[in-house]
Amino acid sequence: MKFFNVKTVDETMVLIEEQFAPLHEPVRISIKEAVDRILAEGVISREQVPSFSRSTVDGYAVQARTTYGASESMPAFINITGKIHMGKGAELPLLEGEAQYIPTGGMLPDGADSVVMIEHVEEVGELLNVYRQVAPGENVVRAGDDVGIGDHIMGKGSRLRPQDLGVLAAIGVTEVAVYPVPVVGILSTGDEIVPPEKSELSPGEIRDINSIMIGSRLEQLGAKVIYGGIVQDEYGEFLARAKALFEKVDLLLLSGGSSVGTRDFTVQVLGALGEPGVLVHGVATKPGKPTIIGKSQGKPVMGLPGHPVSALIMFDLMGVPILRRLQGESKDVLDKRIRANLSRNVPSAVGRSDYIRVRLEEREDELWAVPVFGKSGLVTTLVESDGIVEISANKEGILEGEQVKIKLFGKEL
Amino acid sequence: MKFFNVKTVDETMVLIEEQFAPLHEPVRISIKEAVDRILAEGVISREQVPSFSRSTVDGYAVQARTTYGASESMPAFINITGKIHMGKGAELPLLEGEAQYIPTGGMLPDGADSVVMIEHVEEVGELLNVYRQVAPGENVVRAGDDVGIGDHIMGKGSRLRPQDLGVLAAIGVTEVAVYPVPVVGILSTGDEIVPPEKSELSPGEIRDINSIMIGSRLEQLGAKVIYGGIVQDEYGEFLARAKALFEKVDLLLLSGGSSVGTRDFTVQVLGALGEPGVLVHGVATKPGKPTIIGKSQGKPVMGLPGHPVSALIMFDLMGVPILRRLQGESKDVLDKRIRANLSRNVPSAVGRSDYIRVRLEEREDELWAVPVFGKSGLVTTLVESDGIVEISANKEGILEGEQVKIKLFGKEL
Repeated sequence: MKFFNVKTVDETMVLIEEQFAPLHEPVRISIKEAVDRILAEGVISREQVPSFSRSTVDGYAVQARTTYGASESMPAFINITGKIHMGKGAELPLLEGEAQYIPTGGMLPDGADSVVMIEHVEEVGELLNVYRQVAPGENVVRAGDDVGIGDHIMGKGSRLRPQDLGVLAAIGVTEVAVYPVPVVGILSTGDEIVPPEKSELSPGEIRDINSIMIGSRLEQLGAKVIYGGIVQDEYGEFLARAKALFEKVDLLLLSGGSSVGTRDFTVQVLGALGEPGVLVHGVATKPGKPTIIGKSQGKPVMGLPGHPVSALIMFDLMGVPILRRLQGESKDVLDKRIRANLSRNVPSAVGRSDYIRVRLEEREDELWAVPVFGKSGLVTTLVESDGIVEISANKEGILEGEQVKIKLFGKEL
Repeated sequence: MKFFNVKTVDETMVLIEEQFAPLHEPVRISIKEAVDRILAEGVISREQVPSFSRSTVDGYAVQARTTYGASESMPAFINITGKIHMGKGAELPLLEGEAQYIPTGGMLPDGADSVVMIEHVEEVGELLNVYRQVAPGENVVRAGDDVGIGDHIMGKGSRLRPQDLGVLAAIGVTEVAVYPVPVVGILSTGDEIVPPEKSELSPGEIRDINSIMIGSRLEQLGAKVIYGGIVQDEYGEFLARAKALFEKVDLLLLSGGSSVGTRDFTVQVLGALGEPGVLVHGVATKPGKPTIIGKSQGKPVMGLPGHPVSALIMFDLMGVPILRRLQGESKDVLDKRIRANLSRNVPSAVGRSDYIRVRLEEREDELWAVPVFGKSGLVTTLVESDGIVEISANKEGILEGEQVKIKLFGKEL
């Protein structure tokens, strides 16, 4: 089989970045439904948080200078003139020489600049004995300390984490503009592929692994999945089914059968769906070379290798960035790869990116990545693995003990 | 305020492990809906995968010994007697001195033990010139190489990843027994707390951050969330609302207002809901000390600190293990913490576990964790952070440059 437009991983990544973008207008949704969605517009605060100066302890609001010099042996004596209630302003402002009881989170009265902790005072009738001095601002969060008016809270393209939604709630922003969840279709191809539901296999048949594996991965990533089922290696049928699915989705995944014919069909289908068609026809990786990326009518189409190990690795490597582009996520994403030492030498060919499956082991508080070898047709090697290590195209391999970065299998992108 | 039953983190973890377990019988669901669910019973394969010996290349199925000694200058000559079609068995068995064309993934004919790659042969009419010798088993995945009959595929308590579901599909297991998704109720308390929807705050009021923050975190973890709203610091009302919510859920979270009164209510409510009530009344951590864990009618109840930073850290530290127990997840979970060097000295008190917020920075290919300081009332410090570092109770602090493990914020447990 020939690949006509083999690209390196780096070239493919640049191309994905350039070619794909959100296909739909942003929608406004409640922050209650917005976790892990991507902001379509930045958020600037119109309020300050907290909106008032708050006590961080239970104690007495005072003017700090009235406590200066106070100690266990020489307390300051201050008049108690009031009590702050949670969720309400003070009834009276605080004057010099006065104290008002204030609970944690209570609003500082006008005139007060600090709070003496309850542990450092004694109430004697209406007189407060203060045994420790405080500085201005002590035990207080000032208005606007957390968020100021005009603060840039989050940028367009940010992924909304629980704490980000917390800040939005704090500033009274209960709706956000996000890009719609991408709809992804998966069509498995190959004369040998039968549905997992088939209980008795005939000679030469295998059950469809890739649909459920890639479909579940998409569910983890928050995409909406349409299972297109299995289609035989017959071009007319293949094109008709691919076309029908393509109309309903934002990204079409074609999971190749193992035969040459099927892969050629993917290329032909891309041509038939519309310009520009095939962008990448083969990637310089191992496993995963027979990966196809194309675009028709502005939408991405990805042809995944038939072998499950290759399919999952290539989907995570290139399908996930396509999904991120479709959701408008900014490029600058935290590198969440774990570091560990490789447990043995692994050779590799220069000019090709190798992806090796590894299991993690902790030995004497050092983390080791132990390669899990096996043909890319063996899906159980993925079950034994915790993640993937890349040997980049410019390396001849990695030596035992060398530090590597591991992309862990998990819910993350 | 006093805590009557302060426990260390380790003590609390043991207690969570001992006290909580799945509350419901397992349910059977389709593997299409099972990603990230927890297996309630182990899976043993009744089939082998592949169910037949397959070629891993396009080429010719042969008996290896008929190729021995073959080379570019001295090819072996073999009779072509057939062609294998994808998804079908061979029409004829293969005898010595014969070859049959076989595509990648095709079923090896009886009698064949290896495949010569198409690149190493030449067809001359019905005669095959073989230019390279193969060994028995070469370019073949044998029946059962991936999964054998009786293989233990996954154990009870495993979390189902996409590749695990792929293997289940391969062996024809399309339904699995899992524990139901936990239903979690959140009730926010405090006279100062108002809904995020309130546009104009009155003096002393703050919007509810914890409901949305912890609720979103629960959504990430796959739990079902019931938002119980906000209740004032009035015991009768608090008890009635907590009781009503408790009946509907598997885990009740009470997010404390900042005042002493509210925290006492949580303890009283736990008493009123049923035995044994409070198990942990304060944890030796900073932040997060005012955390309460209890159990009534077999169900867990957790009182979270009112400060958002403390609430999120303590929920991740202790609420997540409670959720895992409710789903029957096995204890042995991969440590997914990233390692980095701490960028500066951070002191800590012995006997207390400290949790510090950090931002990750890459400098000359080394990963550094930069502490983000700020009071635990300031939720923006969480927005600036990438994760949390623990300083364990037996340490006096961490020195600049020391390696630390970071629990990253993200979708993971």
